[in-house]
Amino acid sequence: MMVQADLHSRRQSPVRITEVCPRDGLQHEPEFIPTTRKIALINALSRTGVVEIEAGSFVSPAAVPQLADSDEVFRAIERASGVIYSALVPNERGLERARAAAVDKIAVFTAASDSFTQRNINATVLGSLARFKPIVTAAKRDRMAVRAYLSTVVCCPYEGRVAPAHVRDVMKRLLDLDVDDISLGETIGTASPSDIRALLDTVLPHVELARLSLHFHDTYGMAVANALTAWWDYGITAFDCSAGGLGGCPSAPGASGNVATEDLVFALKASGANVPVDELLVVACVRQLGEAVRHPLNSRLSQVLQLQNLVPAQKR
Amino acid sequence: MMVQADLHSRRQSPVRITEVCPRDGLQHEPEFIPTTRKIALINALSRTGVVEIEAGSFVSPAAVPQLADSDEVFRAIERASGVIYSALVPNERGLERARAAAVDKIAVFTAASDSFTQRNINATVLGSLARFKPIVTAAKRDRMAVRAYLSTVVCCPYEGRVAPAHVRDVMKRLLDLDVDDISLGETIGTASPSDIRALLDTVLPHVELARLSLHFHDTYGMAVANALTAWWDYGITAFDCSAGGLGGCPSAPGASGNVATEDLVFALKASGANVPVDELLVVACVRQLGEAVRHPLNSRLSQVLQLQNLVPAQKR
Repeated sequence: MMVQADLHSRRQSPVRITEVCPRDGLQHEPEFIPTTRKIALINALSRTGVVEIEAGSFVSPAAVPQLADSDEVFRAIERASGVIYSALVPNERGLERARAAAVDKIAVFTAASDSFTQRNINATVLGSLARFKPIVTAAKRDRMAVRAYLSTVVCCPYEGRVAPAHVRDVMKRLLDLDVDDISLGETIGTASPSDIRALLDTVLPHVELARLSLHFHDTYGMAVANALTAWWDYGITAFDCSAGGLGGCPSAPGASGNVATEDLVFALKASGANVPVDELLVVACVRQLGEAVRHPLNSRLSQVLQLQNLVPAQKR
Repeated sequence: MMVQADLHSRRQSPVRITEVCPRDGLQHEPEFIPTTRKIALINALSRTGVVEIEAGSFVSPAAVPQLADSDEVFRAIERASGVIYSALVPNERGLERARAAAVDKIAVFTAASDSFTQRNINATVLGSLARFKPIVTAAKRDRMAVRAYLSTVVCCPYEGRVAPAHVRDVMKRLLDLDVDDISLGETIGTASPSDIRALLDTVLPHVELARLSLHFHDTYGMAVANALTAWWDYGITAFDCSAGGLGGCPSAPGASGNVATEDLVFALKASGANVPVDELLVVACVRQLGEAVRHPLNSRLSQVLQLQNLVPAQKR
């Protein structure tokens, strides 16, 4: 356990929010979101205070038709200074498209359990790492930063519980590939703060805080509790989340997946964290998606503000 | 701060859930719920493992028409052994009805802020305590237990923040009235775990744990985080909640109020707490309300299970 003074100082670091709505949030939306709306969403999110926006994906358009327009999106967005624009890249072909789109950062994707990676990206965990190696090397040669997603860090939908020590080992291998940062994903939303403590106790000695982000799914309503525990008990101040709580749970459409950015920001601020994100602007970003998203949002703050008619006008 | 071993042992006490859905949950439902459905709901909740059910209210039927049938409900329910059936009682007339209905326990209601009690029950806080005194005395003489609700324990919608020391003082006055237990209510849902720590640090030295319950509203998505903090950091094991997340927020219809019983039970179990409540049966209880409730439920677990078609058949 770290010294109390260190913990206090860690907690006060500005919270870094990676906004994943434009990619992870939208990818499974059943209705195609028009490209102009995606561009407007990203431009609006750029003015909320988030430090990074996952703006698209260069996977096969056949696999994820919703994001087939990522090349066009990246060409058209207005890039705000200080914001990193990233895209998912599964292979060399994706990397070429990312390079052509001048993304700041690519994201590669694996998991801590073989059954999950096998179904998700048709490779074992080790196989996925071997696949990443040339991509990471080439990306960095081209001065693109690299983020690695490591999912199923507490539980795998096929294998059940995943041991923290196993997560640590896969994480170390990813860090050895020289990725810039790593996002640990609690994929199925069944983890509790106790699980998060066990995970962080095991992995934190092996990763610099500046390279770590946590990615919680709110499927069972524990994402905010998990994030607040990571912040309060460990001083973690980097989180992935999705405006409006969009996305994140393809196997149960309509069920919540990603924790809503506005809810997490609200909770962290209410707890005394230093969060340079305006949660009301995040709500306005989502509202601007309008009827393109035809289902209730998994966001408490959006619900409350819309009921009270308090959503602010979009800042220009 | 208590000794770690004491805390560990407190955490392992069986969690006592007070199910408030039949009263607090239903009271603001816009469509009248038929009496037979209310009776069936209470009977089903009696088999979930909750220790107490707030089954009705003896306020004026004109003020809360939804619960005008509480006398009839109490007459018809099947009382399960080991379950306490309580009702809200605002005055002597309500106490007469409670006595006639053979309730096990009455609940009286005040808040920590004058502006709130003034608007809610047309009395100052001290005025409300004076009003309770003869009711509590008469109830106890008639061998009914008494619960006191103390709301706005962190924030008042009219006055803003409420000092923990002020909550402590009102709580002590309530305990001095010889109420059996007290429920501290975080009414507007803006409190964070940090606020709950500040509150509990101040009030816990003045109340036996066996007499205390916490009542969180999930309006902004922090109820589960607050409850898990109270459990993990302080060993609190008594919570009020409402099946389906029904009720609790009359000023913003449709916005969430009470934390859903099934979500809180799921989160506590996932954290390792000893919770003798079957959350799947709770979901089934809500489902049985059926089309009587015509809006989406504020319950993650109900949403997920319904999507996956996993709601169990009602136990008979």
